[in-house]
Amino acid sequence: MRHAIDKLFSNIVDRKNADPSVSYTAKLLDGGTNVIAQKVGEEAVETIIEAVSGSQDSLIHESADLLYHLMVLWADADINLQSIWDELDRRSGRSGIQEKANRL
Amino acid sequence: MRHAIDKLFSNIVDRKNADPSVSYTAKLLDGGTNVIAQKVGEEAVETIIEAVSGSQDSLIHESADLLYHLMVLWADADINLQSIWDELDRRSGRSGIQEKANRL
Amino acid sequence: MRHAIDKLFSNIVDRKNADPSVSYTAKLLDGGTNVIAQKVGEEAVETIIEAVSGSQDSLIHESADLLYHLMVLWADADINLQSIWDELDRRSGRSGIQEKANRL
Amino acid sequence: MRHAIDKLFSNIVDRKNADPSVSYTAKLLDGGTNVIAQKVGEEAVETIIEAVSGSQDSLIHESADLLYHLMVLWADADINLQSIWDELDRRSGRSGIQEKANRL
Repeated sequence: MRHAIDKLFSNIVDRKNADPSVSYTAKLLDGGTNVIAQKVGEEAVETIIEAVSGSQDSLIHESADLLYHLMVLWADADINLQSIWDELDRRSGRSGIQEKANRL
Repeated sequence: MRHAIDKLFSNIVDRKNADPSVSYTAKLLDGGTNVIAQKVGEEAVETIIEAVSGSQDSLIHESADLLYHLMVLWADADINLQSIWDELDRRSGRSGIQEKANRL
Repeated sequence: MRHAIDKLFSNIVDRKNADPSVSYTAKLLDGGTNVIAQKVGEEAVETIIEAVSGSQDSLIHESADLLYHLMVLWADADINLQSIWDELDRRSGRSGIQEKANRL
Repeated sequence: MRHAIDKLFSNIVDRKNADPSVSYTAKLLDGGTNVIAQKVGEEAVETIIEAVSGSQDSLIHESADLLYHLMVLWADADINLQSIWDELDRRSGRSGIQEKANRL
């Protein structure tokens, strides 16, 4: 079974050819990199505010919004999703001491 | 096989009991919500700047940093990872028209 | 003659008692700290994007938007404007070496 | 007497020719637009976090840090400070109804 995050990314990529008047994702992609980056920034700020002063539920909701817009940014940049997961695997593989040396 | 993002989150949660002087993740978790939220904001800004004026490689790298710190924020808030994936599934399930009505 | 930034702050403070259905400033103040902070974040992101990839004119425009919303945040927190200027004066007074020691 | 904010901006512009190993401002300017924009983003995030969950004193301190780094961004872009104040004057001049129409 496919992971939810891989499935959502596929849906986003599929929307590249959708009608911007019907699909919000297509509209975002049509708006260009600066517009999408602006949305990522807005959702990051909302996530931060909810983390610092909101509830767990609102943090989950804003985090999902942030992930969604971040993936639209990846689709806009033609990023291969596997390259992100490979990068996360490198972080998982680090021992505590390497982790510190790499600040991760 | 476990997904890279689930594996990294498990590693982050495991570090909750690690020594902050050895593990960067433990140090972040020890610093508290505001410190972690600040880092999420910094990585979001770096991601935005790379998207707008950088290379695909640097966007991948900064995106992975953002995801990692976002997951530390989730670990700090005791979020069940499945609740994030359920939220993403709801977004995947929306048709184009529902998508527009929900602004997603 | 009063400085433009002091004059705008006075106008913002005056709007605390204005009708939120007529005054955008009153509506913001009525929305509360989290809403205003969110707007400061959005304008900061726009300023960053214009600085990195836009024109001088758009940077001026977004910077003014950021200043305006930052001042609404100060009004919301009942900050005495002079305390901000005193803080800037402390930064001006630092010599190069003190500047470095203070990271400013 | 000169306003604190005009004085600080003059000091920042003067540092354009200073030694980056002695002056933090010169070092920032030497680092280039993306580095300065990144700092503006970091200080904006700190300001937001303090507004939402901190004290008035820490909000004043972070706001001054944000203003300082924003002015370094203006110096980097060779912005004439008066053009910012003219923009603020335009916002001050708007009546409540114009304000709403202009979303300011």
